[in-house]
Amino acid sequence: MNEHSGVLPPEDEIVHVGDRPVRPDGVPKVTGAACYGGDYAPPGMIWGKVLRAPHAHARILRIDTARAAALPGVKAVVTGADFPDFPDAYHGIERLQKNLHHDVRNVMAKEKVYFHGQPVAAVAASDEATAKAALALVEVEYEILPHVITIDEAIADDAPLVHETMITRNVTPTPTKPSNITRRYAASLGDADAGFAEADEVVELSFASVPVHQGYIEPHACVAEHAADGTAHLWVSSQGHFQMRDLTAVLSGMSNGDIRVTPAEIGGGFGGKTKVYLEPVAMILSRKSGLPVKMTMTRDEVFRATGPASDSKIRVKIGAKRDGTLTAAEIELYYNSGAFPGAPFINGVLCAFAHYAIPNQRGVAYDVVSNRAMTAAYRAPGSTQSCFAVEAVLDVLSKKLGLDPIDLRLKNAIRVGDAQIGDRTMSHEGFAEILTALKSHPGYTRPLGPNQGRGVAAGFWHNMSGHSGATCMVSSDGTVTVASSSPDIGGSRASMAMMAADTFGIPYADVRSEIHDTASVPFGDVTGGSRVTFATGKAIVGACDTVITQLKERAAQIWGVDAEGIEWKDGAAHPSSTNVGGFEPLTLKELAANAQATGGHFGASYGKTMSGHAPGLSAMFCDVEVDPETGAVKVLDFVSCQDAGRAIHPSYVEGQMQGAVAQGIGWALNEGYVYGPDGKLQNAGWLDYRMPVASDLPMIGTVIVEVPNPHHPFGVKGVAEASMVSAVAAVGNAVSNAAGRRMTTLPMNPETVLAALDERGPEP
Amino acid sequence: MNEHSGVLPPEDEIVHVGDRPVRPDGVPKVTGAACYGGDYAPPGMIWGKVLRAPHAHARILRIDTARAAALPGVKAVVTGADFPDFPDAYHGIERLQKNLHHDVRNVMAKEKVYFHGQPVAAVAASDEATAKAALALVEVEYEILPHVITIDEAIADDAPLVHETMITRNVTPTPTKPSNITRRYAASLGDADAGFAEADEVVELSFASVPVHQGYIEPHACVAEHAADGTAHLWVSSQGHFQMRDLTAVLSGMSNGDIRVTPAEIGGGFGGKTKVYLEPVAMILSRKSGLPVKMTMTRDEVFRATGPASDSKIRVKIGAKRDGTLTAAEIELYYNSGAFPGAPFINGVLCAFAHYAIPNQRGVAYDVVSNRAMTAAYRAPGSTQSCFAVEAVLDVLSKKLGLDPIDLRLKNAIRVGDAQIGDRTMSHEGFAEILTALKSHPGYTRPLGPNQGRGVAAGFWHNMSGHSGATCMVSSDGTVTVASSSPDIGGSRASMAMMAADTFGIPYADVRSEIHDTASVPFGDVTGGSRVTFATGKAIVGACDTVITQLKERAAQIWGVDAEGIEWKDGAAHPSSTNVGGFEPLTLKELAANAQATGGHFGASYGKTMSGHAPGLSAMFCDVEVDPETGAVKVLDFVSCQDAGRAIHPSYVEGQMQGAVAQGIGWALNEGYVYGPDGKLQNAGWLDYRMPVASDLPMIGTVIVEVPNPHHPFGVKGVAEASMVSAVAAVGNAVSNAAGRRMTTLPMNPETVLAALDERGPEP
Repeated sequence: MNEHSGVLPPEDEIVHVGDRPVRPDGVPKVTGAACYGGDYAPPGMIWGKVLRAPHAHARILRIDTARAAALPGVKAVVTGADFPDFPDAYHGIERLQKNLHHDVRNVMAKEKVYFHGQPVAAVAASDEATAKAALALVEVEYEILPHVITIDEAIADDAPLVHETMITRNVTPTPTKPSNITRRYAASLGDADAGFAEADEVVELSFASVPVHQGYIEPHACVAEHAADGTAHLWVSSQGHFQMRDLTAVLSGMSNGDIRVTPAEIGGGFGGKTKVYLEPVAMILSRKSGLPVKMTMTRDEVFRATGPASDSKIRVKIGAKRDGTLTAAEIELYYNSGAFPGAPFINGVLCAFAHYAIPNQRGVAYDVVSNRAMTAAYRAPGSTQSCFAVEAVLDVLSKKLGLDPIDLRLKNAIRVGDAQIGDRTMSHEGFAEILTALKSHPGYTRPLGPNQGRGVAAGFWHNMSGHSGATCMVSSDGTVTVASSSPDIGGSRASMAMMAADTFGIPYADVRSEIHDTASVPFGDVTGGSRVTFATGKAIVGACDTVITQLKERAAQIWGVDAEGIEWKDGAAHPSSTNVGGFEPLTLKELAANAQATGGHFGASYGKTMSGHAPGLSAMFCDVEVDPETGAVKVLDFVSCQDAGRAIHPSYVEGQMQGAVAQGIGWALNEGYVYGPDGKLQNAGWLDYRMPVASDLPMIGTVIVEVPNPHHPFGVKGVAEASMVSAVAAVGNAVSNAAGRRMTTLPMNPETVLAALDERGPEP
Repeated sequence: MNEHSGVLPPEDEIVHVGDRPVRPDGVPKVTGAACYGGDYAPPGMIWGKVLRAPHAHARILRIDTARAAALPGVKAVVTGADFPDFPDAYHGIERLQKNLHHDVRNVMAKEKVYFHGQPVAAVAASDEATAKAALALVEVEYEILPHVITIDEAIADDAPLVHETMITRNVTPTPTKPSNITRRYAASLGDADAGFAEADEVVELSFASVPVHQGYIEPHACVAEHAADGTAHLWVSSQGHFQMRDLTAVLSGMSNGDIRVTPAEIGGGFGGKTKVYLEPVAMILSRKSGLPVKMTMTRDEVFRATGPASDSKIRVKIGAKRDGTLTAAEIELYYNSGAFPGAPFINGVLCAFAHYAIPNQRGVAYDVVSNRAMTAAYRAPGSTQSCFAVEAVLDVLSKKLGLDPIDLRLKNAIRVGDAQIGDRTMSHEGFAEILTALKSHPGYTRPLGPNQGRGVAAGFWHNMSGHSGATCMVSSDGTVTVASSSPDIGGSRASMAMMAADTFGIPYADVRSEIHDTASVPFGDVTGGSRVTFATGKAIVGACDTVITQLKERAAQIWGVDAEGIEWKDGAAHPSSTNVGGFEPLTLKELAANAQATGGHFGASYGKTMSGHAPGLSAMFCDVEVDPETGAVKVLDFVSCQDAGRAIHPSYVEGQMQGAVAQGIGWALNEGYVYGPDGKLQNAGWLDYRMPVASDLPMIGTVIVEVPNPHHPFGVKGVAEASMVSAVAAVGNAVSNAAGRRMTTLPMNPETVLAALDERGPEP
């Protein structure tokens, strides 16, 4: 059960890794056979619907569900009273700091509603229409309270309090006055004041962004089947079915072992499907009704009541010598986490300058609550907002210093051993290599036309490792089934099969790759943090290696020799050089066919908290053209460069990079929540919340650099998030350069761009 | 991964084993929530139906499916041409000698039909009625051939040949003339002729029985979902979903890894659900139609086309000295396997005298084919028929010698180390102990009234060990989920959870017990051969022990000490006596709660071909009363005694004993296939095939003796089949004693009993 570290396999044994086979989930998905969250329908299933708060902030004075419960066809009604109570304190559920007092309220309001759209009651009925009709019969009496929506509103003196008794944490001395700032985080490196004093140029700018949604195609959906004996099955479309199990269990008053969760296919998550919303509600409705309960969200519900990325308010100051050496950097940021604390404000500080070797840094960050839907993770959560600010300041600096923007970044590129803020040290090479590769891209020297601009940006994201579980089973005909604990969002079934095939030295066609339910595979963390190909890949290889040990031992037993020295290669056990007798190699197929007669079948499970992951780094340029009449921005070209360590299935790596850039372009140019003065979201649908479609985008170029990670059996570094981090910044710099005016607020939609053009002047 | 051998746990650590907790599958079964073979209905599912042969033996001259295929609603039609061809040769699929050439024809006829009811074509359509209607449109032209049904017909000189070119195997010299005897088996021990010469009394009798069905309540049912990418899901109610996978794969031209099989609940099997019938048909229909296909059998189809137990023709001769010492025994038997070879004729010889220490033995057995549905296993297959004959001869001997029938058996009871026919040696004690326990049962001395008789019988069954797979996963809240590869027929979910709870030393309520699909747990053999509590129990304990090792290592890591010497008891790791520092024990719950932060979650899989099982032995008596007017037999009392080694959940052990006796009473008194001269079964339904119901039976007494098996962590010996073996014989001896006439044919229904009463005379 030892985790891989050190030696990568010889190149001649890497046959499938790096290839581009057809994805195992491709055919079911294009034929419609794949089953998503809403596609499961057990016998006797009924439908659950949620009654949502009609106010942004209000006290619940009375709920009467009697009329709803009496409607024919209604099988169960729940309110906050059906959910457990928890102390208002932070608990470690696994490594995540959770406040269950808040979490349960995000699922179902108790004494107050904190945002428009918050669940207040839920009904399960024999059909969807009856459930909807019953919602209208639930009587709720509210006392409307004043609300705060934006960061500025929330942090204003004497702002209405979202949580009346919340004291800002991590401030010394502990404040006595309640506040909407829930936590403060501060960190430093070197001496920032001294660093700024050394600088020849100092640029300081302030930025702001609004909430954006992850925009997954598939709305939240689940089916809960609570049996009379207290056990339950949960069918769920999520980034982590083990997390859905553990959270649903605690919020439903059950134990983890009571619930078996089957992971459905998932139609996008990007961080937004790591939380429970419907699952505990469906579970309690199922328990009360004795019937399986399906719940699905409408798009409107997804927008109003699931987590967007935080809106932000950021100030960045960077100092540089005339030769481009960065001497000091400072960031101050506020992230809005919505109704309950949990914005990725710490990431904003930790990632802001992490790709540069800047000796003197200072950062402070605040987690702010407001009467909005609670935020959730969104691809490299917290890093994109701060990167937009930092890379804009660098863009300004590069102009002031007369340096090529890639050269400025290369000069300061972080290297292994360089210090990072937050008591960290850079662990992997690769950033300088991608900057160099980007600079040599032919598109980078393409001449620009009128109203066109080019923006360069680079970004850092921690990536995660975490816990992954895997199993490997060999069937008597030699087919190998590998399974993991990680829901397959980005094609991990293919990459796991490829790594398994190369670990065994067998054809890709002999490997089947699956995702297993919570009872069938060791525990796994969410598919997130760009961790799956790295950490789950290690678990898969770990399970395969355990089976290879079994195969070698069996060969030794058959040969009557010691297993020591037996070598496994090309799908067969080879006798060691010291074995007398000249045995013929025994292939996996031969060993499998005789498995039962020789002592048993081959198979293993493997689960571990992995270490040795590499951070994700991106560098990219973007060319845009601004229409001076309308302010519309057209993206002409976009090239992203990342270090994959090794690209297991390069098409998926390219897809991750392209998808992240597409989302970054949407965030940069169009997307954003619009609230009315009543605190209600005004654009809760695809028509009014404008995400980019294919015709909005150029073909996004990708350059994969491979600087292997020695702590992964095939050298993998996570790739899923890094291109998101700097994509918004690249567009921001391109639009600023095309418009001749520094853009500091998101989105850069025609209205804001036109306003910028109107006040065009010299760079600040 | 070492298998248990040797030391049993101290009694004070056995808390749950031996208790009688509520069964985990009880509530779902009584509430109707449990899902059986027919209860799965994926979206888009269509229905398959089988067209069956209208003749007992015929050549197929032409099949035209065009009209059936053209019927609106029909999605796919298959005939034998859609199934692979295999050479007519025996292959090792796992340890079973399979002739795939025969197996595929049992699933779908090709050039000939071999029995009335054999599948000839199948249709899948949007609904069951359309599928049935389409069957009527399949045109088949037959050339009717002469048929053979009984053993006597089949082995007659110049009998019509079932397989035209079949030569009897294992006869020297190899015959040149084809025959309906497919195989011969002969074995001996000592010198039978010399043994008979020593005897003071020799009794020789001939016996015959007809086929009986296992009579499971749930007919065969399955759903196959073949996806466009070549992978498939199979939902099946069987005794072994791994076997269903492997057989369906080979008979559908797929690889094992292509098919993932989910085990449904099973409504009885008793050996009859170890073969594929519908599964490959549904799979190919699904592949052709691109839709999930459900197939279920009617009761008529179950009777006509699935395997009953063999009819038999047996001659037994036993010699004894005046003091009861058995000196020689001989058996000759013919078992009818139906259309394709595979009767348990070898078991008939191996089990006949295996419970007695008889120094001189001779046995010869023949496997006969006929134009009947192919036989399948039925609880201790092959042993019941020969036991009926052997124990009858012993009953006659005990009278001739003037010995109590239990005393005669005790005098000759086999002991560890005694030789058995077939080059075997008895491996476990226990038989003498159950005979002694039976004799002391108060019912054994109850005086009998007029027309009443008591029958004693004892039986032997090998039991099996085989391969079992298990997993054990610990959740962060300390709940433990154990899962196995063995479909739960007799309550193994409870017994596995009990053994796991005692292995960990935790409450039973903290353990969840499940059966996993073929991709989620290491390979397992069928639930059969009384093997699950033994072999799968060992796998479960093996997986738990592996997890305990992980837990101890984690405790050592947390304490910063060496894992050596750390003891696991009462659900916690205890520091070794040599550890300095006086650490508090770390419980499973504590270790689980901190698992992720300390290196990973706990879990393991375990799979192995197990050894060390004990045979199953039974001894029982039965009191009956014969109605001299009608010949009807009423069972007054029945007490069965078995050695369980250790009864994990005594209620289940008693249930196994009672169920086996109930089936034996049915076989003895009422059940039997009735064929017409046209070779068609005339009683293919519950009304005409008379199985006993509750009102036919007395409360069946059980005596559990516990002589532990040292090769199982809790001492388990298999209990599921042994009571079946001798139950028919016990009834036979009781009826013979009540009627005053030796009964030598089965069933002993009113007709045969009345005939016996009419010719009553002295014992032969």
